[in-house]
Amino acid sequence: MIGLGLIGGSVMRAAAAAGREVFGYNRSMEAVQAATAEGFDATEDLDAALTRAAAGDALIVLAVPVPALAQMLGHIRDLAPQCPLTDVTSVKTCVLDEVRAVGLLDRFVGGHPMAGTAESGWAAGNARLFVGAPWVISVDDHVDPDIWTLVMNLALDCGAVVVPARSDEHDAAAATISHLPHLLAEALAATAGEVPLAFALAAGSFRDGTRVAATAPDLVRAMCEANADQVLPVLDRTLDLLNLARTALAEGSPLTELVDAGHAARVRYDSFRRPEIVTIVVGEDNWREALAAEGRAGGVIRSALPTLDSRG
Amino acid sequence: MIGLGLIGGSVMRAAAAAGREVFGYNRSMEAVQAATAEGFDATEDLDAALTRAAAGDALIVLAVPVPALAQMLGHIRDLAPQCPLTDVTSVKTCVLDEVRAVGLLDRFVGGHPMAGTAESGWAAGNARLFVGAPWVISVDDHVDPDIWTLVMNLALDCGAVVVPARSDEHDAAAATISHLPHLLAEALAATAGEVPLAFALAAGSFRDGTRVAATAPDLVRAMCEANADQVLPVLDRTLDLLNLARTALAEGSPLTELVDAGHAARVRYDSFRRPEIVTIVVGEDNWREALAAEGRAGGVIRSALPTLDSRG
Repeated sequence: MIGLGLIGGSVMRAAAAAGREVFGYNRSMEAVQAATAEGFDATEDLDAALTRAAAGDALIVLAVPVPALAQMLGHIRDLAPQCPLTDVTSVKTCVLDEVRAVGLLDRFVGGHPMAGTAESGWAAGNARLFVGAPWVISVDDHVDPDIWTLVMNLALDCGAVVVPARSDEHDAAAATISHLPHLLAEALAATAGEVPLAFALAAGSFRDGTRVAATAPDLVRAMCEANADQVLPVLDRTLDLLNLARTALAEGSPLTELVDAGHAARVRYDSFRRPEIVTIVVGEDNWREALAAEGRAGGVIRSALPTLDSRG
Repeated sequence: MIGLGLIGGSVMRAAAAAGREVFGYNRSMEAVQAATAEGFDATEDLDAALTRAAAGDALIVLAVPVPALAQMLGHIRDLAPQCPLTDVTSVKTCVLDEVRAVGLLDRFVGGHPMAGTAESGWAAGNARLFVGAPWVISVDDHVDPDIWTLVMNLALDCGAVVVPARSDEHDAAAATISHLPHLLAEALAATAGEVPLAFALAAGSFRDGTRVAATAPDLVRAMCEANADQVLPVLDRTLDLLNLARTALAEGSPLTELVDAGHAARVRYDSFRRPEIVTIVVGEDNWREALAAEGRAGGVIRSALPTLDSRG
């Protein structure tokens, strides 16, 4: 584990609870001391951690913030270039670009456990953070079936359900269902802040619609700015829909188009099924495309898929 | 009670539970039979109900949909023009206009209990629907202190906390904290419905941000369209904020302005205080302006204010 914050620290606890050998590095002494005090194997000596990973052919899990990624990948290339590599960062294409730039693409399979809390740091983590949560694992064209299987098994050991997805499709979906809702919540809260009596009358629809505006501004900015290419088109689509509604309201025309489309989409979401993916063999012909298609349709992996080599 | 749907039926139950004599009219036989079967005094004979109200100088509570309002007010003018009159409808200025048009303004004090469920009809109501909920009571320039006191006492008997507000300020605030969130939720849901993988990855921020898109489309349209004059300026403000964010994202500039403003507003909302209004006497000089100012600052009435006549 490279990085023992909320997500990295929770993966470490969950992997250890599943009986895995796990050791971690963190830049700050505080998290290392806290982890060690709880019986975990942690160090602030990066070289030692990476040398040990290389010797044991360990799966390296990157759990550092995006700005720290490039430098960290340089160290990994120098000391543990053969280790299988994954990450737990929220925007996948920019990580992919960094990994490609440093020449580690063939050992890398990106991941994104979709869990979190408003808090951060080692102390905020827990071994059950990922239980039942979707954990996206990339099925980009380059990914190696054996490394994919290693990452799938880690996610399943942490109690997550695995959603296979291409990095670009993940980022477009994350823009829509996470980054865009944050921007709308900020705009709604800011607008209401300027209207006398608004807070005095605010109830459920305002509370729900602005809940994520309570998120730390730095986190919201980091998410949205890092995924700007994918946020822009969905923000534009939302602006188009709202502008059409604005025109209808100003003309005294009915709001039918927006309201019917929104209601229909929400009803579809409420009845969205999560079928289990069971028939695909990792490594067979077109396995990446097949997994991406099943993930797009809502499919999830709840128990390990067979891989081509491991079949009897 | 004129109308025994969710709100009217709940007011009837709550008023009866508080020991009041209450009788109701409903257009459909079904609600009348259901209410009668539960021991309430209900009829589908409108003339009889209004004649009885006039004879007893009853407080008439209008709980019919806005489109039925004009015709109903005509009947009231014909059969019970001297009765004090209130309503429980969500948009206050359009009700005020209808009441003024029919010549009943001097007997009218508008109200809006801010409670509801996704369901509707008599069967969905209950006597505790308003417990702890804000119940806005209008303090427009024309309102009579004695009728205001009657309406305040009804709301308090139903367990609500009373928020005094001008009708126009109520409608602007409702546009901001209820109608605008519905439009944003519809736009978010509709946008996500077009993005592959979005539903597969959707979690808390999407669920919260689209919850009210599950509301029946007719209700959403009716609310927003009836309050279009007040929805337009706050929708425009939100569009301005989102367009600024769009420009920043496209330029690679930070999203600081929107995110900081949204976060600051939500934090202010979380710490918004609800002081109890205790020092105002209904009917004293400038009592309407004083109540409007306190309501704007978050003030609520939890036990009956004195009125000028009733002071010792």
